[in-house]
Amino acid sequence: MTMCIIDLSQTFGSTMPVYPGDVTPTLRQIATVGTEGFSDFQLTSSMHVGTHIDAPAHMIDGGKNLLEVEPSQFFGRGVLIDARNISLITAEVLHGARLRAGDIVLVNTGWSVYFGQPRYYEDFPKVETSFADVLIAAGVSAAGFDSPSPDTAPFATHKKLLGHGILIIENLVNLERLLGVGEFEVVALPVKFAADGGLARVVARVPA
Amino acid sequence: MTMCIIDLSQTFGSTMPVYPGDVTPTLRQIATVGTEGFSDFQLTSSMHVGTHIDAPAHMIDGGKNLLEVEPSQFFGRGVLIDARNISLITAEVLHGARLRAGDIVLVNTGWSVYFGQPRYYEDFPKVETSFADVLIAAGVSAAGFDSPSPDTAPFATHKKLLGHGILIIENLVNLERLLGVGEFEVVALPVKFAADGGLARVVARVPA
Repeated sequence: MTMCIIDLSQTFGSTMPVYPGDVTPTLRQIATVGTEGFSDFQLTSSMHVGTHIDAPAHMIDGGKNLLEVEPSQFFGRGVLIDARNISLITAEVLHGARLRAGDIVLVNTGWSVYFGQPRYYEDFPKVETSFADVLIAAGVSAAGFDSPSPDTAPFATHKKLLGHGILIIENLVNLERLLGVGEFEVVALPVKFAADGGLARVVARVPA
Repeated sequence: MTMCIIDLSQTFGSTMPVYPGDVTPTLRQIATVGTEGFSDFQLTSSMHVGTHIDAPAHMIDGGKNLLEVEPSQFFGRGVLIDARNISLITAEVLHGARLRAGDIVLVNTGWSVYFGQPRYYEDFPKVETSFADVLIAAGVSAAGFDSPSPDTAPFATHKKLLGHGILIIENLVNLERLLGVGEFEVVALPVKFAADGGLARVVARVPA
């Protein structure tokens, strides 16, 4: 089947905004075709910068790290939830969503327009645990957000999702391009880091 | 359709072998659930370590970098080439392969058994430009190897492939698990780095 790919990943460049308190990452060129005969870049970054995936071990003591997550969990039927202009996201936005086991639920908050501005990490929309309860009952694989996080300390929503093995995908972009798309697959592949989470490429595959 | 995922990616851990001359990467824990309430890791690495993708800009002046590659090129029908026990790989191994435009060709050299040993980067199998010529004629999307590189300086095979827009995937593993598999798809997704190449997760999807 011919597929159209919609890239849901933020570009990881030489300047990246980070969650307050995180170390600022760097990506700098260390070799060029003109001088060394090949190009190369050196990256320094923590694992929760730009588009990335949280595995359970990110917040759950003894939870699965990225290596322990079955790779099939990185693929799933995509379900887009329209949560634009809602500052407190509850189970209500899932009304009529018909979630199935293995789905990857993407929450289009519209917040990615602020990526790169200080506001992005300030008053982003928060997701209540009631939202997580519905995802847990359905047995979805992952929940993705076009914002820095579904919640702030003490991270009740994070812990509920991760505690039930649901991956969290953060800092997505282009979710508005999926509005009105009937059927799509999400592929959310993290680098195979021996860590609690990590940088990932996330795309939607839409039948052309 | 139910799919079985075969992970073709090396684990990126706290000790990683690198191409001679490359900077040694580090992946170290900087926060724990017990102390900070969440886990995090700090990575320092160049882009051509572990399982990764070379975009044309890696060796071609003015070639496309990772951001300029169409994401559809990261997906393709997989074609496994059995090149075990061949130290000089030529076009001959492609005899009867029936390559099509957009394919992702994986070369099973068997060399990944040496990953982590000094030998891995020493006398790995070399791929001649005649092999690249056939891939170019067919218009494949990418060529992947379970070895550190298809060739050494002056990198004629690298330059031929990259010069024709064919991505190179290096340091794959588990290719022997695809021997005898009739039909599969390769998904080779790099993090969206603003660079000439980058760390990637590569998997095969086999109909269950």
